[in-house]
Amino acid sequence: TQSIDLAVVAGDGIGTEVVEQGLLVLETALAGTDAKVATTEFDLGARRWHATGETLTDEDLAAIRTHDAILLGAIGDPSVPSGVLERGLLLKLRFALDHYVNLRPAKLFPGVTSPLANPGEIDFVVVREGTEGPYVGNGGALRVGTPHEIATEVSVNTAFGVERVVRDAFARAAVRPRKHLTLVHKHNVLVHAGHLWRRTVEAVNAEFPDVTTDYLHVDAATIFLTTNPSRFDVIVTDNLFGDILTDQAAAITGGIGLAASANINPDRTAPSMFEPVHGSAPDIAGQGKADPTATVLSVAMLLEHLGLDAQARRVEAAVAADLVERAGRVRTTAEVGREIAARVAG
Amino acid sequence: TQSIDLAVVAGDGIGTEVVEQGLLVLETALAGTDAKVATTEFDLGARRWHATGETLTDEDLAAIRTHDAILLGAIGDPSVPSGVLERGLLLKLRFALDHYVNLRPAKLFPGVTSPLANPGEIDFVVVREGTEGPYVGNGGALRVGTPHEIATEVSVNTAFGVERVVRDAFARAAVRPRKHLTLVHKHNVLVHAGHLWRRTVEAVNAEFPDVTTDYLHVDAATIFLTTNPSRFDVIVTDNLFGDILTDQAAAITGGIGLAASANINPDRTAPSMFEPVHGSAPDIAGQGKADPTATVLSVAMLLEHLGLDAQARRVEAAVAADLVERAGRVRTTAEVGREIAARVAG
Ligand SMILES: CC(C)[C@H](C(=O)O)[C@@H](O)C(=O)O
Ligand SMILES: CC(C)[C@H](C(=O)O)[C@@H](O)C(=O)O
Repeated sequence: TQSIDLAVVAGDGIGTEVVEQGLLVLETALAGTDAKVATTEFDLGARRWHATGETLTDEDLAAIRTHDAILLGAIGDPSVPSGVLERGLLLKLRFALDHYVNLRPAKLFPGVTSPLANPGEIDFVVVREGTEGPYVGNGGALRVGTPHEIATEVSVNTAFGVERVVRDAFARAAVRPRKHLTLVHKHNVLVHAGHLWRRTVEAVNAEFPDVTTDYLHVDAATIFLTTNPSRFDVIVTDNLFGDILTDQAAAITGGIGLAASANINPDRTAPSMFEPVHGSAPDIAGQGKADPTATVLSVAMLLEHLGLDAQARRVEAAVAADLVERAGRVRTTAEVGREIAARVAG
Repeated sequence: TQSIDLAVVAGDGIGTEVVEQGLLVLETALAGTDAKVATTEFDLGARRWHATGETLTDEDLAAIRTHDAILLGAIGDPSVPSGVLERGLLLKLRFALDHYVNLRPAKLFPGVTSPLANPGEIDFVVVREGTEGPYVGNGGALRVGTPHEIATEVSVNTAFGVERVVRDAFARAAVRPRKHLTLVHKHNVLVHAGHLWRRTVEAVNAEFPDVTTDYLHVDAATIFLTTNPSRFDVIVTDNLFGDILTDQAAAITGGIGLAASANINPDRTAPSMFEPVHGSAPDIAGQGKADPTATVLSVAMLLEHLGLDAQARRVEAAVAADLVERAGRVRTTAEVGREIAARVAG
């Protein structure tokens, strides 16, 4: 028997609601296999911060490290100053656990309405770098609050960091039918970082001669995501551009209620983390209105990461079937979770 | 009589083709007024760089400075290393001439098909900061080409720079029917720059109490541009986010063939510059296929900037009328220009 030690960070707002359904589906998917899951809940997020002033202590991090994977709901609340939980908790997890591959599939499922008039087939994946770029927290401010204030943000990009995520993206492209990789950056303006990314894609391409590549400036990428999303197969990009493009990608494939993500440490030196792309949505929290589908699809990515491919496919198929029939039905978070779980079981 | 000294930088690729039509419309709009235009052409761009290695010399810049305004076509060619012309010419003009307001309207004209299924009414304007942010060219690379390469890009934001563009955006919002300003940034991650922007919007709001404001993270903004673009009235944002959002804004309003822009120095210490948002499009250059409409609409912004409001409205109305009737017709660049000019004359 495979025993899965899962760290659960339900977090804030709708986080707890969607994670509950994600766990239900996970347990259902494992029933009848010889794998079983043991969960440890971590009390992290706005409540903990208000109570203790802590975001993520060394002890929390050490405890989380002992797990096989992490399921995260959502982090963030308007009652906490902007950036405190994002940088002190969510990004700290991604950085400390070396989640250098932030994997975000964008797929328009049958039955799902896209806001695009002619979406065509949409089935691509964004490989977003997760540990560098403008997200490193490198920068600062001088003379804050005076007319002479100056604030800087430094994007840090290393050959080491870029190469490993580019190689991962190539490997993913190589096993997809279209075998195509698009680098998105802005190398005509951000010349230092951009040229490092470009040279790295050219160099690593030699290891994957079957994979074709092209390049788009980030501004042009937003155009193609609107006019011809079918052109994309695998996108590799930096942390900030990946953040932006994956929200747009979610929007054209039915919204962030459906967008899953995996923060992967491919070297498995620390647990990977699975989370919906959406935030804590305080405006609808506690009302049973949140769509747990993104979390359920993140659970499918978790299963795949743990080598439980058949179970991952089962969960995905259950979601796909649910999506075909959901149009026009108003269901609670728990109802959606239960119905998907029933399909997984059935 | 008002004599307008116009510096013309046709530039690369389709730049020359679209500028020719822009000038035709400009001259037509001025016929019968007491204003007349005198143009000076500047040979800048890829051809000049190949011939002389120069992008923009001190003499070029000094000569351009003596003009009342600049009409620019497009800069950039694949034969020139990425960044050389962008940073050495286009951005150098924007920075040296202190174009701190990069104004980019997004309007879905009647007769124009949006790629969105339900675009609704789209009529907003992006006030993109033009002289700071990650565009400052502050950054560098170490150990280039080795496994230890590190490349940085520094976003520089000052109270001075942010406040002046935010004030300009408020002033624009205050005279629009909806009087609404949306700040777009990413202050939960880029905390130093983001908080400077946020505090500045709050502070300047006191001078414009009629203007309502809200805030969106840049990733969320791409979602709303897809699902509900009608919600936007005036957007104010930094140089890079503005670059990204305005291409997406162009995409949802009929494409970059229609997207105009103005690089404005509101203090009038140097000439402002008017240019289509699109690039040099080398793939279609020289074939008479480029749509000059974005340049013509940029000419309307130029007329307005010079205080020739009636002429500006005439050009806009001519474009609007042309757009209503263009569906299905294939015309050359010159035909589109001539037909719009005829409407302006007529
Ligand atoms: C909450 C925020 C820090 C985060 C990010 O910017 O990465 C979110 O937008 C995401 O995409 O997961
Ligand atoms: C060509 C490039 C430097 C430029 C920019 O990034 O500003 C362009 O994309 C634009 O939007 O005008």
